[in-house]
Amino acid sequence: MERFNRIEWDDQGLIPVIVQDHETHKDLMFAWMNREALQKTMELRQAVYFSRSRRKLWFKGEESGHVQHVKSLRMDCDQDVLLRTVEQVGGIACHTGRNSCFFESFNFDAQAWEVTEPVLKDPALIYASDVENSDMPPTESRL
Amino acid sequence: MERFNRIEWDDQGLIPVIVQDHETHKDLMFAWMNREALQKTMELRQAVYFSRSRRKLWFKGEESGHVQHVKSLRMDCDQDVLLRTVEQVGGIACHTGRNSCFFESFNFDAQAWEVTEPVLKDPALIYASDVENSDMPPTESRL
Repeated sequence: MERFNRIEWDDQGLIPVIVQDHETHKDLMFAWMNREALQKTMELRQAVYFSRSRRKLWFKGEESGHVQHVKSLRMDCDQDVLLRTVEQVGGIACHTGRNSCFFESFNFDAQAWEVTEPVLKDPALIYASDVENSDMPPTESRL
Repeated sequence: MERFNRIEWDDQGLIPVIVQDHETHKDLMFAWMNREALQKTMELRQAVYFSRSRRKLWFKGEESGHVQHVKSLRMDCDQDVLLRTVEQVGGIACHTGRNSCFFESFNFDAQAWEVTEPVLKDPALIYASDVENSDMPPTESRL
């Protein structure tokens, strides 16, 4: 199908996607999609990724409620990176409870990293305790 | 050194970087850095990448003149993706002569891709003819 046939999947069958807030234009996160995740995103207009740690589809917000409504989807000149703009429900994209995953900034004068984004909500309140106490794999599957 | 020791390099020793215009907040391109490229970026505040096709450092704009002055540098929650904002000299980040490499948009109604960014300058005028006629490898090294 034309919507897929120019995409350059990597050797894992994945393509990276940059996720930007459609209103603030802040880059919120970065993740990966396989063909099925991209197909679902295109059809549902809701962000679906492929979790590399869990090896399965990851419907963003399925546990946190922080779903992403997709406003636009772009492809780069090499057809190997995608960019989507989203409405971020709850204003929190990061599993740390911050708006953006890019919350550390490099201070060029000090030549050191600094945390520059506040935690908006305690992650313990975002994720249910039964999830916290389960054998859930790493963070990306819990966003 | 602290500025490097939390970074999660991939199995090629690289880290991806998203590049955003510091004024328009448009995402311009996506590329990769090795340790040396990141070190030079941190010190020079000028965008330096690692060209995966040429297997060497790539000083953005060295042929086109479209250098990028780095305004900020951020790191994500997994320490495996960077985000930089830049002043894009010439207003052209893409080797196709466009402002942004993300120049194709997905039309959800038509379920098809469409070019939605104009060419600002003919690439033949950006790159010298001796470069055009040489055995230059793929596009990313010529930006």
